[in-house]
Amino acid sequence: MERARKQLHLNLFLLSTGHHEASWRHPGSAPERAVDVHYYVKLARTAERGLFDSLFLSDAYGLPPTIKYKVLHGLEPFTLLSALAMATERIGLIGTASTTFNEPYHIARKFASLDLISGGRAGWNIVTSTGNTTALNFREEGLPEHSERYRRAEEFLQVATGLWDGWERDALVIDKDSGVYADPDKIRPILHKGAYYTVRGPLNLPPMPQRYPLLVQAGASETGKAFAALAAEAVFTAQHSLEAGKAFYADLKARLPRHGRAPEEVSILPGFCPIIGDTAAEARDKEQALHELTQTEYGLYRLSNLLGLDLSTYPLDGPLPYAELPETAQINSQKGRQQMFLDMARSEGLSIRQLMMRTASSRGHFSMAGTPGQIADAMAQWLEEGAADGFNLMPPYLPEGLDDFVDKVVPELQARGIYRTAYSGRTLREHYGRTAPPRIAAPAAAQAPLRA
Amino acid sequence: MERARKQLHLNLFLLSTGHHEASWRHPGSAPERAVDVHYYVKLARTAERGLFDSLFLSDAYGLPPTIKYKVLHGLEPFTLLSALAMATERIGLIGTASTTFNEPYHIARKFASLDLISGGRAGWNIVTSTGNTTALNFREEGLPEHSERYRRAEEFLQVATGLWDGWERDALVIDKDSGVYADPDKIRPILHKGAYYTVRGPLNLPPMPQRYPLLVQAGASETGKAFAALAAEAVFTAQHSLEAGKAFYADLKARLPRHGRAPEEVSILPGFCPIIGDTAAEARDKEQALHELTQTEYGLYRLSNLLGLDLSTYPLDGPLPYAELPETAQINSQKGRQQMFLDMARSEGLSIRQLMMRTASSRGHFSMAGTPGQIADAMAQWLEEGAADGFNLMPPYLPEGLDDFVDKVVPELQARGIYRTAYSGRTLREHYGRTAPPRIAAPAAAQAPLRA
Ligand SMILES: Cc1cc2nc3c(=O)[nH]c(=O)nc-3n(C[C@H](O)[C@H](O)[C@H](O)COP(=O)(O)O)c2cc1C
Ligand SMILES: Cc1cc2nc3c(=O)[nH]c(=O)nc-3n(C[C@H](O)[C@H](O)[C@H](O)COP(=O)(O)O)c2cc1C
Repeated sequence: MERARKQLHLNLFLLSTGHHEASWRHPGSAPERAVDVHYYVKLARTAERGLFDSLFLSDAYGLPPTIKYKVLHGLEPFTLLSALAMATERIGLIGTASTTFNEPYHIARKFASLDLISGGRAGWNIVTSTGNTTALNFREEGLPEHSERYRRAEEFLQVATGLWDGWERDALVIDKDSGVYADPDKIRPILHKGAYYTVRGPLNLPPMPQRYPLLVQAGASETGKAFAALAAEAVFTAQHSLEAGKAFYADLKARLPRHGRAPEEVSILPGFCPIIGDTAAEARDKEQALHELTQTEYGLYRLSNLLGLDLSTYPLDGPLPYAELPETAQINSQKGRQQMFLDMARSEGLSIRQLMMRTASSRGHFSMAGTPGQIADAMAQWLEEGAADGFNLMPPYLPEGLDDFVDKVVPELQARGIYRTAYSGRTLREHYGRTAPPRIAAPAAAQAPLRA
Repeated sequence: MERARKQLHLNLFLLSTGHHEASWRHPGSAPERAVDVHYYVKLARTAERGLFDSLFLSDAYGLPPTIKYKVLHGLEPFTLLSALAMATERIGLIGTASTTFNEPYHIARKFASLDLISGGRAGWNIVTSTGNTTALNFREEGLPEHSERYRRAEEFLQVATGLWDGWERDALVIDKDSGVYADPDKIRPILHKGAYYTVRGPLNLPPMPQRYPLLVQAGASETGKAFAALAAEAVFTAQHSLEAGKAFYADLKARLPRHGRAPEEVSILPGFCPIIGDTAAEARDKEQALHELTQTEYGLYRLSNLLGLDLSTYPLDGPLPYAELPETAQINSQKGRQQMFLDMARSEGLSIRQLMMRTASSRGHFSMAGTPGQIADAMAQWLEEGAADGFNLMPPYLPEGLDDFVDKVVPELQARGIYRTAYSGRTLREHYGRTAPPRIAAPAAAQAPLRA
């Protein structure tokens, strides 16, 4: 009997008109539907037809100042995912929630509710937020410092998991005759009092089907990777090349044993932006057409923001002003992304304009133009050479980029024996091949049972 | 031509197994489905079949210590209402959100998202929260003081409406050819800096169909009524008798001109808990059966909590210990409700046990047992004598209490010419007969247009 090949997992990163920054100008895109729930229903159903493990909504709590040139992000994740739960059956529903600008009780409860509504399909992309566009909607001081954000994230997660663990599975008695609805000894407050949060508990919802939502993380800095190793079950990451992907993969997997976790307990999902053509030439033409729609004003803003320096006064066709750029240590927003952009520009010798174009399709994630077969081969290579356990699919434009992937690439993956031909699990965690969430050390308290 | 009779509005107060505290023990109830979305879908569709203006979810952010004797409240409102939006077409969807334990940016955005998802059917029950069961999940000090909560509510509402007003209707240009997605001069930050919140804005969602969700309020204290007069378009209220209802109605309507508002700009909806029988005797039997299922432990806890004194050491069949009870001024939780309970007990000369029973069906709201015709007559009387513009229907047990109402009482209301026979509007606000939300004074700022 042939040895079964390693199976890949697919998450759809669902973002209004797609991941190329000019996607909204693509002839087939529908930017006027960026806040239309029925538009997302259709895309979610396509992903489900493609047997994706999950779909994912990113999030930020502010309007980017680039709205003149860039389509809206979309609807709010908890409301949209709950709506999508009703319109789909099997696909996982991963929402982003920031630990910097939320209360753990609210977030724990909303994920529990979403998991109950969806029958065990909720996932949480745990982020610490990345900019003042968000921060200034909550406080005057702007974004808290990077390491403080991660300390807060750890405490936040302790509280959330403590709340989810607070109910024993058999706490609900529901005996109409005796009049006992629940056994209060099986529902414990957490009595949490930490540096950032005071939360008594217990949660006002019973255990959700998955016990915890699938825990997802996407930090790329040292602190971010340490956090992922502690808590994440799936990791989104931006890797611009196979080599970079392998290095990240090896690095993250090596961190797991320190937390008593096996390598297969975390699925690493690099972002992947495929431009699909029936021939290689057609794919290249499609890529070129997208490039011609990109706008310098937007690209410059995006790069300047990420690299921490206003680039608009430098010659577009000259090199990056390396000497003037801040060091990674000084970057407070996305340290990991800043480093990757510098690596790309240096190793490929890119001008400012070239870096802009190179990152326009998916902000630096792995991107390629090719035929369905070439794309499936590249995915298989990342899988087999230890750069990925699957992919965070970032179609350059929607709906076509997703339709093409599902209709043309998925069969190629299946033909290679590396992708499912039917769902076998029911819950999101089962799709990723696991049965239980990670063990996250409980907060101090939790002795006193609940008493009226 | 006969003069058209005043039309009544109906809101379904959707609460797990129903409003009688023993409803979960009722033979026809399904307490094991209190967190099952499909259970709520079915009820929402029944209410829609009954042409209700809206359904409403109350909320608190904590588990009551009475969980031993009392069914769970249900799912989280934003997630559940978004799910229900997908399963219904016309009925309004009102969710509760507290201004004491939330950030205005998050709440403004979630309601905008819900309104977009539901096609203009969102409503916001603005509450300030009522107890430490909630408060201790956010802070050590417990519930902030009553008047501070309302000051915070006013600022919160200023911020939220400011965010909703920040986008002009035609801000989205979406011109693929020129590459202009939006006109940044038509999207303004609010630059809010107040006593409680700092919020830059703008919102990252375009105007919702209704511009604001329908604004609903339920405070009964002086401060609460002042707030309702300023901002509410619908008011939920607990009134135990026609007389009390008339007094409240007159009081609230008289406050409106001070804010430049006409009496018809606010719909007053007293809670109403009908126990429906095909004969009066059958209705009384049903009521009696429910009474027999109530539990003293729970009822005593509930009364003690509301009145601010542990009643468990007093004889159940004796009077309330009036001399020992705290004054309304000392009550920090629900001043209005405490006063109503004392009024009821005094005016009807009730013992502790009698007050418990009298308030078991709906916590003091107007309740009656009768035939469909008697119930419709009572509703018509409240409508015509100036005690109500409609009702907040609180079925004692579900699903039967709602089925009976829709199948038997609704036709009686229609036969009396006081209730619609088909939906005419599309949005929730249209159901309540209005076209625009109230004008709420804008926060200080809002000059600088958004710039990249
Ligand atoms: C695929 C992907 C998706 C992300 N989605 C979000 C998001 O929705 N919201 C957010 O605030 N940050 C998001 N991030 C950013 C990271 O979660 C992380 O907060 C950020 O990179 C800063 O952490 P770092 O300095 O450790 O990299 C995303 C990153 C990646 C790679
Ligand atoms: C029908 C009705 C529903 C209510 N729903 C809620 C609720 O869901 N959550 C909440 O915290 N308070 C709720 N309340 C309480 C009021 O909103 C208000 O906060 C409370 O009565 C305290 O204000 P007061 O002292 O002005 O009455 C409700 C009140 C009524 C009459």
